[in-house]
Amino acid sequence: MSAPQSVHSTKDRPRPPGPLTHYGGGIQSALGEILPNGSLRLSGPFRYHLGWADQQGRFLDAPQDPGKAVRPALCLFACQALDGSWEQAMPAALALELVHNFSLIHDDIQDGDEMRRHKPTVWCVCGQPKALAVGNSMHAAAYQTALALTQKGVSQPKALRCSQLLVESSLSMIKGQVQDLRFEDSLDISIDAYLGMIRLKTGALITCALQMGALLATDDIAHVNAFTDYGRSLGRMFQIRDDVLGIWGDEKTTGKAGRSSDNDIRRKKKSFPIVLALQNADQSDRRRLEQIYARQTLDQQNVDDVLGILEAVGAQESAQHMINREATLAMDALASVPLSDWAREEAQSLVNFLASRDH
Amino acid sequence: MSAPQSVHSTKDRPRPPGPLTHYGGGIQSALGEILPNGSLRLSGPFRYHLGWADQQGRFLDAPQDPGKAVRPALCLFACQALDGSWEQAMPAALALELVHNFSLIHDDIQDGDEMRRHKPTVWCVCGQPKALAVGNSMHAAAYQTALALTQKGVSQPKALRCSQLLVESSLSMIKGQVQDLRFEDSLDISIDAYLGMIRLKTGALITCALQMGALLATDDIAHVNAFTDYGRSLGRMFQIRDDVLGIWGDEKTTGKAGRSSDNDIRRKKKSFPIVLALQNADQSDRRRLEQIYARQTLDQQNVDDVLGILEAVGAQESAQHMINREATLAMDALASVPLSDWAREEAQSLVNFLASRDH
Repeated sequence: MSAPQSVHSTKDRPRPPGPLTHYGGGIQSALGEILPNGSLRLSGPFRYHLGWADQQGRFLDAPQDPGKAVRPALCLFACQALDGSWEQAMPAALALELVHNFSLIHDDIQDGDEMRRHKPTVWCVCGQPKALAVGNSMHAAAYQTALALTQKGVSQPKALRCSQLLVESSLSMIKGQVQDLRFEDSLDISIDAYLGMIRLKTGALITCALQMGALLATDDIAHVNAFTDYGRSLGRMFQIRDDVLGIWGDEKTTGKAGRSSDNDIRRKKKSFPIVLALQNADQSDRRRLEQIYARQTLDQQNVDDVLGILEAVGAQESAQHMINREATLAMDALASVPLSDWAREEAQSLVNFLASRDH
Repeated sequence: MSAPQSVHSTKDRPRPPGPLTHYGGGIQSALGEILPNGSLRLSGPFRYHLGWADQQGRFLDAPQDPGKAVRPALCLFACQALDGSWEQAMPAALALELVHNFSLIHDDIQDGDEMRRHKPTVWCVCGQPKALAVGNSMHAAAYQTALALTQKGVSQPKALRCSQLLVESSLSMIKGQVQDLRFEDSLDISIDAYLGMIRLKTGALITCALQMGALLATDDIAHVNAFTDYGRSLGRMFQIRDDVLGIWGDEKTTGKAGRSSDNDIRRKKKSFPIVLALQNADQSDRRRLEQIYARQTLDQQNVDDVLGILEAVGAQESAQHMINREATLAMDALASVPLSDWAREEAQSLVNFLASRDH
């Protein structure tokens, strides 16, 4: 496996987006190594989804559009920041990526989405029944990978604990997805309910990434807890920023928000800005929102109306305010942990990136 | 938890179906205890599928139509037969039952089946997206349950090993399901390919049940291997008998084979008797089979024609011959293990039951 670039040296360290770039090559190489060997046809679409094969399942020399691999990078960063060996933590990192990707394959089935990462989704390529099975095998393979931590010299108690943390966070993620499904049919979503949902759906796996990475580096429970809290804030920032980009993120390409067909307003997603508007709009705007979201499909006028209401309640600013607040909480969580300068800088650059990323 | 009846005493031991009945109460009680506590709505359909709740998710005092719980019973039997503590093995047994039931929930989605165990399937009750999530949570809960073996005093190495075995057998099961899906579109299925498919789809989890049960009772690898081999034969018997019942099993109720709407012929399933016929029929019968299986739906005349061809090639007798051969192999596998009389008798009664069961 090709080693990721050192993050100890600050002079040759890539600038933002920080730790997310350091481990990318190492993660992809390690993924390429554990992918099924092709003797079973299931492995074709399995590899295809991860970017390691074409639609016919033929292995590629290097992955195409493999995704950002945020969760494994966070896990390896936490481990290295606490002076652990990121190579030892690699199975935990890969397991997180497999759980995340299993959930994407099934999400695409549930939502009927036809494209992901610039290519047809797995169910579009091989049909729904097989795609369901591919997701299931990726889910099981995640635990298989985590259980193999002992092969990297991790103690059995820690391998067991990491496997438990992974399965608990997967269960939380699935519960969050079910809560999110319920939101589809509701306009009565409190801000607390929304934050509770994303804590499960998105936060659990991101938190688990930091927690496992820390646990594999240290026995100091206070330090593990600090990284867990850091992860909880990162998870919230990640999802709320995702929600902001889902509405206003296409301004750069189209010149105007809400023009893209996959804009979250057009998809009627109850993301954070919409929840804020449902809570804070005046009576007539709230009624207008209810009328619009009662429609089967939204036209451009509806989208523009919603954008107007979001602007009236200052939804984008409120969301960004929440992100910035979490950014502060994230770094506060690490304050008592004695980190090297590079590690604290990287932790900060990660926070800065998640607070302001535009993709 | 109410203790299962003792299987050490032969005089008050229930007669066939042997070990399958002894542990039923204990398994259901233990399942009732680990089911999610209802604070998350996901647990409603989760409990419903297992027979512990009604369609609205309301908890029942006792499970209704919970299924035969074959796999957990086999696990507990292997453990007790080798002088282990079945209470200690219970988490492994429950984990097997959860993996099996997760696969049923997803199978029903894949096949569009609307009824199971005399009640509507989960996707019929709560929709496909949520049913997908319920299956996923049951899949994850299975590993969570296996990882909790240490709470019963099982050593960490054994808990890790059992979790690995469970995840490997789940992966095999999923691969077998994908092979089975491929058989739907093919008439060119060799007997070896069919046996390879059921070894994965059905055999892996049943084999794992015996293997984990034995492993939790003993460190003697020869004894664990003997029970693993015994399980491999049981798995093959179980599925082939299932295939026989799927075609001729409704004779008792209808007076004539092939009358039921869920007969495997009418569903065009490529089960073992059909694979035998495809291999062994003369040229004209083989062509007739190909014509019939090329149809979208089969009428009663088609079903009767297939039954005639199956009779001409002696498919039922050949299948039963294979079952009987496995019955002998199963008991041969245990020959070198020093078992108590009760354990060997139970092992034999289990084999006898699986060779001749009519439901």
